[in-house]
This record gives sequence, C-alpha cells and structure tokens, in this order.
Amino acid sequence: MSLIVQKYGGTSVGTIQRIRNVAARAVAAHRAGHRVVVTVSAMAGETNRLVALVEELSGGDYSQREYDVVVATGEQVSIGLLAIAIDSLGVPARSYQGWQVRLVTDSVHAKARILDVEAANILADLDAGRIVVVAGFQGVDEHGAVTTLGRGGSDTSAVAIAAGLKADFCDIYTDVDGVYTTDPRVVPKARKLDRISYDEMLEMASLGAKVLQTRSVELAKKYKVPVRVLSSLEEGTGTLLTEEDDDMEQVVVSAIAFNRDEAKITVLGVPDKPGIAALIFGTLADANINVDMILQNVSVSSGETDLTFTVPKGDFRQAMEVLKGPVASIGARDLVGDPDIAKVSVVGVGMRSHSGVAQRMFKALSAEGINIRMISTSEIKISVVIDEKYMELAVRALHAAFELDKDAGDRVGK
Amino acid sequence: MSLIVQKYGGTSVGTIQRIRNVAARAVAAHRAGHRVVVTVSAMAGETNRLVALVEELSGGDYSQREYDVVVATGEQVSIGLLAIAIDSLGVPARSYQGWQVRLVTDSVHAKARILDVEAANILADLDAGRIVVVAGFQGVDEHGAVTTLGRGGSDTSAVAIAAGLKADFCDIYTDVDGVYTTDPRVVPKARKLDRISYDEMLEMASLGAKVLQTRSVELAKKYKVPVRVLSSLEEGTGTLLTEEDDDMEQVVVSAIAFNRDEAKITVLGVPDKPGIAALIFGTLADANINVDMILQNVSVSSGETDLTFTVPKGDFRQAMEVLKGPVASIGARDLVGDPDIAKVSVVGVGMRSHSGVAQRMFKALSAEGINIRMISTSEIKISVVIDEKYMELAVRALHAAFELDKDAGDRVGK
Repeated sequence: MSLIVQKYGGTSVGTIQRIRNVAARAVAAHRAGHRVVVTVSAMAGETNRLVALVEELSGGDYSQREYDVVVATGEQVSIGLLAIAIDSLGVPARSYQGWQVRLVTDSVHAKARILDVEAANILADLDAGRIVVVAGFQGVDEHGAVTTLGRGGSDTSAVAIAAGLKADFCDIYTDVDGVYTTDPRVVPKARKLDRISYDEMLEMASLGAKVLQTRSVELAKKYKVPVRVLSSLEEGTGTLLTEEDDDMEQVVVSAIAFNRDEAKITVLGVPDKPGIAALIFGTLADANINVDMILQNVSVSSGETDLTFTVPKGDFRQAMEVLKGPVASIGARDLVGDPDIAKVSVVGVGMRSHSGVAQRMFKALSAEGINIRMISTSEIKISVVIDEKYMELAVRALHAAFELDKDAGDRVGK
Repeated sequence: MSLIVQKYGGTSVGTIQRIRNVAARAVAAHRAGHRVVVTVSAMAGETNRLVALVEELSGGDYSQREYDVVVATGEQVSIGLLAIAIDSLGVPARSYQGWQVRLVTDSVHAKARILDVEAANILADLDAGRIVVVAGFQGVDEHGAVTTLGRGGSDTSAVAIAAGLKADFCDIYTDVDGVYTTDPRVVPKARKLDRISYDEMLEMASLGAKVLQTRSVELAKKYKVPVRVLSSLEEGTGTLLTEEDDDMEQVVVSAIAFNRDEAKITVLGVPDKPGIAALIFGTLADANINVDMILQNVSVSSGETDLTFTVPKGDFRQAMEVLKGPVASIGARDLVGDPDIAKVSVVGVGMRSHSGVAQRMFKALSAEGINIRMISTSEIKISVVIDEKYMELAVRALHAAFELDKDAGDRVGK
C-alpha cells in the first residue's frame, strides 16, 4: 500500500465529464489499496476568466493580495466538484483549500513560495479511509491571507504535499505521456525517456521544457520525492524523476531543451568596482524579476567591462525601466536589450565524465551557420543564446548530432 | 463619525461597472468621515452557475460540505474585485472571507447559522483607515470547514457583522427604495414606510415580504441593530427598522404581507396522546425542514384530532416522504397535503391595543368570496391560508379595507 499524490492540470478537469474521469482514476488507485491525495488546478479557462475580471476592473493596477483572493477561487471550485464526484463513486472524499491544509507560504502575492506543509489533517483523513482533494496553486501566509504560487504552481503544490506527507509517489498527469529528448513538435523523432535525474529535469525545466515547473523539480530533488510524469489521456509508465544512478552516467546527453521566453540585456562599459553587480541584480530582485544567465567578461586593462544577463521576456520592459537609474548612477556607458533571442541547451548527467560535448555542440551549430551570442555551462548542461529565428533549426541539428533519436546503447561515442 | 456596515446584493455587483458604483458609494461614506464595512453577495447569476455545476456533476445527490466549498467562491470573487475597485479610488481596502473574519457558524452546511463574529481583525483594519470588504453568505465552522448560510444569507451576514462591530447603522441596499405597505406589483397604491418595528418587519419577512431575510431581522432585533433598507439605484431615506415607539402604536395595521412559497400538510385522525407532535415535528426537524404555521383542533370526545401545518413548498415532497413512517407508526388515519395555497397576513404593532382587526379582515375576504383554510395569529399579525389563486385578490381587498394607501393620520378607525 503506497501513499500517492496525484496532480491533474486544468485541461484534465476542464469539463464535468473530465472531472468524473479524474475521480474514477483516483478511486481506482484507492480501490487498489493505495492512500490517495489528489491535487488539482482550476478548470481550464477559469483562471484566465478571473484574471480578465481583475484586469477589466482595474486596468492592470491592482492589489496583489486581492488578485489572489479572486484567482484562488478557480481551484476552490475544482476541489469541491472533484470531492463530490469521488463521493458519488462511493469513496468518501474531503476537499482542502491552502489555508485548511495549511500550506504556508511567504507573502509575495501572486508568486508566493511554499514555506511549510502541515500534514496532520490530511493524514487523519487518509487514516479515516478518505480520498483527500487539495487545491493546487494556493496557500496561506502567516497573516492568514490567501496567496497563490503563480502560473504552474499546482505542480509545486503537489510535490510539496507529497514531500510533507512523505508520499511514495507524486504522479503528475499531463497532456504528454512523459519527458522527451526534446519537444516532439520541433523534432518528430524525439523519444520518450523512461527515467531522468532530478538535476537533468531541473535543467530541462529551467531551460523551458514546460512539462514541469522548475520549482516543483527543485522541491522534488530537495526532498527526494519520486515524481512520475504520466499522461491523463492514456495508460503508460511515463517518465520517472529519480536520483542519478550508474546507468544514467553512461548516457552523455539526455535531451535538448530550448526556451524563447527570455530576453537579453547588456550593461555596456561598467566600471570595474565592487558592488556594481549587487546594485544591478538587487534592483531586479526588488522588482521581483528573476535573472537567468549572467555573463561578465574579465576586464584586463580598460578598467571597465560589459555585463550581460537574461530575464523573462514578460519582464523585459520593466527590467529596462528599473535599471535606467542604477545604470546612470554607476556611470556605465549604455544599457541595451534584445528580446528576440532563444536559448538552446544540451543536458545530461553523463557530461560530468565525458569530454567533447561542447565541441560537438558548437560544431553542429556552426555547420548550420548559426551565430552564438552567449554561452553558459553547468556541470550537466551547455546553453547557448542565439537569434530566436534559428531556434528550431538549432534544436533539430543538435538532436541529430547527439543521435537522440536512437537507443542510448546504439549511439556513436556515447 | 459613524461605523456603517453596507450590504449590497448580487444585482448591485452584477457587472464590473456596478462594482465600481458600489466602490464609489463606500468611498463616499468613508470620505464623509465614516468607518465603512461593506458586505457583498456573489455577482448576479454566479451562485446559480456554481449550483448548476454541482447539479450537473452529481445529479442532485452531493456532499453539502463540498457544495459549500464550491458556492462560497461566488462571494470570494466579489470581495476581491470590490477591494480592488475601492483601492483604485485611493482608499486602501482589505477583503475578508468568512474564515478570515472569523464568522463562526454551526456545521449545517448550506443552511448554517451564525454563532459568533470575531470583530478584532476588522476593527484593526478600520483603525488603520481601511475600508473592509466582507464576503456575505459564508462562514466557517468549528472544524475549519467553509459553510454557507443559505439563500439570502448575505443580509444575515451584514446584520451579524454590524452587531459584532456594534455598528451605528446596517444599510441594506436593495432594488427597492424601502419597505412598503405591501408589494407594489400587486397593489400599485402601496406606500413606502419611513419606519417599521423589528417585530413588524419580522412578521413581514417570515410572511414572505422578500426585502430582508427573516434571520437577519431576528438578529437585528436581538442586538438592536439599526437597519436601513435603501435603494442601490437612487438616493433616499429608505425605511428604518427600529424599536417600537408610541407613534407606531397609533397605527393599527402597518402592512399586508403574503407568501405563496408554503404548502399545507394535514395528519388526519391523530390519536390524542402525549409525544405525537414531538414525533411529527422532530422528524421534520431531523430532515432540516422548517415548519411555519401549526394548527391542532382540540379533540373533545373522539380521542383523536387533526394536525395541520405548513412547510416551504420546496420541502413539500420530502416532508410527505419522511412523515409516512411516523404517521403510520402512530396509527393516524391519513396524511394529506396541498401545495397550492397562499398565506396572506395583516401586520401591525398597534393591534396589541386595538380590537376588531380580525373582524375587519375576515369581512373583507368574505366580501370577495374567498374561503379561509387556516387562521393563525400573533400579538401583531393575523394570517390566513387561502387557495393560491385568490392571493392577489385578497391582498388588494385587505390593502383597501385597512386604507393603507392613505396617510396613517387620515385613516378611518385608525
């Protein structure tokens, strides 16, 4: 008997009939002897409807606290309906809003981070033979205000709850049947992975593979939550997120990820003095803008340098705006930005023990005439920033260069 | 500087523009120096939409607890939007759900009764210069489950909050400009009352005048909350609910109320033994069915009697169903029911000190050839049950007979 947390997105609960299907799946797991907690998003379209109400009313300038009050209702409707649907199949169910769990977050409304999940109430309901249904995407702060975790936050809720309950599995049901070597819409020969390490998935998620939200993978890694990515449309084994093992390290590159949701900003002619970077990135942090890649060339003699970084495309204008003052105050030469970029990355834990990956990557891009604007590496990935218009070409070239359409054992130079 | 609780129904917050109007009204009161708490219902149509989702999913058989989780979202959306609208007019606002107040209720889901209103949090926000926006219709039980108060519960929320805060006024904004001598749709000559006593309003509300919910008037009377019924569409002084004074007692009959939402049930040939009534009404209470009028003829020699009472029309079938067993078990002769009835009542605190009201009432009905099926009296009202088809005729006849179209001072035999 396992304790399983199932998570279903908005499409999976988008109609009354689909809610019945989710209920049937939860009840099947319950009848198979498992203890079942289900986390759900708002019915598809509902969050957009609620956000539109707020936008229409306010013209975009509104209290984030009250925004959260409004949009949190989407998940509240889903949990009530799903609990009723499960009840009607003969298994008692009980719904939980974030404040009822309690799933405690910080007070950064609309983008809150989970601080704690109290497990006692849910465990008591499971002990009583109930299926527990928890609202994804929402929590409560220490002042008792409703918070939301930001788009995609339901994955994070599910993993946090799985961690808090020490669940055996956290099953994320999606509209794909697992994690692929790259997006099959870009590369039709892309292959499903049976397993992927947390670190690889983390790189994939942060690089824009939209199967799971980055924060949910971070949490899964931190608490070693076994996450399965499964299809809500068909039976299958999906992809298991797990810790690395020896087998995995035999594979040099597992996947190609890409992201066109970032923009590039460069501060030109930065005086080479301490405290400058802290001012730039402190300004962005104060505006709640996440910075992804950061590059700074070492200054040799001029006493000044260029600082380049990427931010989410949606925050690009605001970032350029808030940086004007600091950039002027430090005496930098100019502030320039480019939103028309894409990031393409090769990912694999095997890179740690294999060389030549970078070389093979740059060669493949060069063969297609693609100019590289930025390079960034970690232990298990190499990312390049290129012009957005070459993105799909680059992904296909790299997928072929690393023979990801073949079984791992059949690859040359694996 | 007064502390004012304003309550707006679903129509008043039915569109974004109307929410802005409500915000403007609250802000105007705030700028006039008052401390303002606003209680709102769900946007018009929203509760019906949510109930329809539950019905579609369940076919009518569902967990009341989860029903409350779903329908409580309607008010939650309203308070968030209204707080944003008030904010945008330059006055800080903060929304409260029932569990945040906390507005504590019993655990009878979908029909919960208010047990306590904790005032501290709201008062602190008022002290900080904020307008407070509270979700009507909802509370939280001692187990932390969301409850709803039943249709019309927002009036009750408003009065309960006004009582808890010791507010100077509880202003109920409606689509009418006050309380009338009877429904102007039935009697075009009906007149608006400037004042009405709690007791009269209580009779009016329980008799089906739908301006205020009965429970809200009971609460107002209990805690002496000065309630004003006002129009949300036009300026005006409305009708003030207050304690009786000498002036009021000069008026024999204040208003004619009517109600076609009840059904009549008779248990025929009831053995005249102790405990029978307790069994019948205990059964109905267990099924959460409210009984309104009760009549029992004194048995003289037969050793049996007939017991007649009225229940809400919506509960008629269920009442007939649950009574079958008890009626058989006590050896009563038969159980008969009639849903096609109406109740018409004359109401006035002056009745206490004037005689002849019943006579005048029965004479007026008789003159129209209307047969009386049941009679029930209290200190300040006389109600008759008649066939539903004669209801409007009866109301018009009584309104004329008591000269309610004239100023109180001009009436004959006042």
